[in-house]
Amino acid sequence: MLVNGKPYRTIWLDDTKQVHIIDQTRLPHEFITVTLDTIDDAATAIADMLVRGAPLIGATAAYGMALAMKADSSDKNLQLAYDTLLATRPTAVNLRWALDEMKNVLSPTQAKQRQQVAYQHASTICNDDAQQCENIGIHGAEFIKNIHQKKQDTVNILTHCNAGWLATVDWGTALAPIYKANKAGIPVHVWVDETRPRNQGASLTAWELQQQGIAHTVIVDNTGGHLMQHGLVDLCIVGSDRTTYTGDVCNKIGTYLKALAANDNNVPFYVALPGTTIDWTLTDGIRDIPIEQRDSTEVSHIRGRNAAGEICEVQLTPDLCVSANYAFDVTPSRLVTALITERGVSQPSADALLALYPEMQATITVNKN
Amino acid sequence: MLVNGKPYRTIWLDDTKQVHIIDQTRLPHEFITVTLDTIDDAATAIADMLVRGAPLIGATAAYGMALAMKADSSDKNLQLAYDTLLATRPTAVNLRWALDEMKNVLSPTQAKQRQQVAYQHASTICNDDAQQCENIGIHGAEFIKNIHQKKQDTVNILTHCNAGWLATVDWGTALAPIYKANKAGIPVHVWVDETRPRNQGASLTAWELQQQGIAHTVIVDNTGGHLMQHGLVDLCIVGSDRTTYTGDVCNKIGTYLKALAANDNNVPFYVALPGTTIDWTLTDGIRDIPIEQRDSTEVSHIRGRNAAGEICEVQLTPDLCVSANYAFDVTPSRLVTALITERGVSQPSADALLALYPEMQATITVNKN
Repeated sequence: MLVNGKPYRTIWLDDTKQVHIIDQTRLPHEFITVTLDTIDDAATAIADMLVRGAPLIGATAAYGMALAMKADSSDKNLQLAYDTLLATRPTAVNLRWALDEMKNVLSPTQAKQRQQVAYQHASTICNDDAQQCENIGIHGAEFIKNIHQKKQDTVNILTHCNAGWLATVDWGTALAPIYKANKAGIPVHVWVDETRPRNQGASLTAWELQQQGIAHTVIVDNTGGHLMQHGLVDLCIVGSDRTTYTGDVCNKIGTYLKALAANDNNVPFYVALPGTTIDWTLTDGIRDIPIEQRDSTEVSHIRGRNAAGEICEVQLTPDLCVSANYAFDVTPSRLVTALITERGVSQPSADALLALYPEMQATITVNKN
Repeated sequence: MLVNGKPYRTIWLDDTKQVHIIDQTRLPHEFITVTLDTIDDAATAIADMLVRGAPLIGATAAYGMALAMKADSSDKNLQLAYDTLLATRPTAVNLRWALDEMKNVLSPTQAKQRQQVAYQHASTICNDDAQQCENIGIHGAEFIKNIHQKKQDTVNILTHCNAGWLATVDWGTALAPIYKANKAGIPVHVWVDETRPRNQGASLTAWELQQQGIAHTVIVDNTGGHLMQHGLVDLCIVGSDRTTYTGDVCNKIGTYLKALAANDNNVPFYVALPGTTIDWTLTDGIRDIPIEQRDSTEVSHIRGRNAAGEICEVQLTPDLCVSANYAFDVTPSRLVTALITERGVSQPSADALLALYPEMQATITVNKN
């Protein structure tokens, strides 16, 4: 996607095999790219959240392994690199997946060839992710085109949090259909939930859309219901961190409230997700998906740019005040209009998802036994 | 209510007839009281939002008239004071009501007696408001007591925005039942929605509850749905800026989303309101109540205390980013369990409200003709 008119991915190589990323902690106020020379640079970038979003964390870890192999391609260093990177964000499922991928490819490879193979495989992981997201965009854009065809006017889309290209290697998930529709010449306008507590909507989604030249308006998370009551939202598209194969969607806290409002006002509510985030072991998302509680200072404090132009934190609550920070919620499948995956669109039900991913039938059968 | 263990109202007189208020713009970080010596002090306090909340704005305007009469009790100054105060917050319905009250009492009064009558009537307005709020508290506390009787454990209450004593002269509306239940020895815990964009929950409600020693937890506005899904909320109580006589409730933006979640999870949703905020002319709140759009900088920026201890603003969105700031939304009566008024509890319907306020029957009939 574009930054200052120039196409970027969130992670890329230069001619000297150095890895580059965007320091997302400085967005939206400053666009700064950072060079990763060593595995420690990669580990720090993940741990300090310069990169975030499951696919991008995985891609950065994969290139972290390549940087490690460039420095020392021994068996010992392969294991050390794996352990170092895994420790950066222990709960990130995609991080472990990418590291396992790299290790499985590198372990049987001769040490002297590991550097080349590692760079190659990291590049494949990145390209696959970008292609998967682009496919989500292609499938999801159909919904936007259909509404435009009926309405013959700008299509208003509400999104929550940041499921854009910054969270992936390119394109994003929830925003990919919007980018595809925009490229196809459909006039769109995006209502951007700021998405407290970490405000990824106000900072990242707004910045992404601004850079692509797509009309958008930032709103506080309280606003979507009012907009839907007054016909100002044509459809909602959100991402997902984890979706049960029965169609219950775990996503950033507050998603459920928007799904309720969409349902109450007959606004379609779509969830864009790569098949890798479907959990084929769970049937009841509300009962079974554990919800992470993060540091309460994310609620009591907020980060922004002060009048002097410095990025800083301010405290919102009284001293000694208790706050709680549930990171995600679960939207039950009955409130989801459809799931948009890289393989196509699916009803939020086991039968429909298994029709798209028939190879998972065996997993389900095993779990049922 | 208590501040640092000492009982306060939000506005009070001292022996020298000076008026005192709390500078609410400094809360929750600093507790500062301000003396109003002149009508201009009162006007500034309202315009700069040192005082806010419809009842407190009205009370401050009433005392502003008294301060004006102390300085110059002529007819000319009576009208000038009225005009000056009315201009401070032109859309505040309660401001005009309080000023009309004062003018109607003062106009037929001889100039030399106006000072005394003005102070007396301002005091009556304040006492009436406090009594009305206390009655709301008495009626609403029954719901909390009933839940406690069944549950035999701490009652968890979710509230949105600040409808506490700081918005009134004393007791508040939505928080009054909580204060009454607490005084009756019922163990309560309050989930406090921070209430973006102005964060009156995180700053004012949290501070109020802390000062009364009532257990509470600040959450971002996205969280309530998740809590209700998991049985962590026993009831919701919110305030109202305006309620149709058919029971549609206009309140701070985001109230509707919490009402949807309450309905989806069988959590009772109560609205506490003085009868004066019932609009006897409207039947369809969503269609008929105009929703104020406030300055978008309330969304793009936020106020807090920085590391140096100074209260300042930080910018959250990218430069040049568009944001929208709808101040209120309307919760349809079908999502409201009951209305709690100073006269008692009512179903959210025209028949039930007219049974409580039979004197309004004539108004309805006139409107229908």
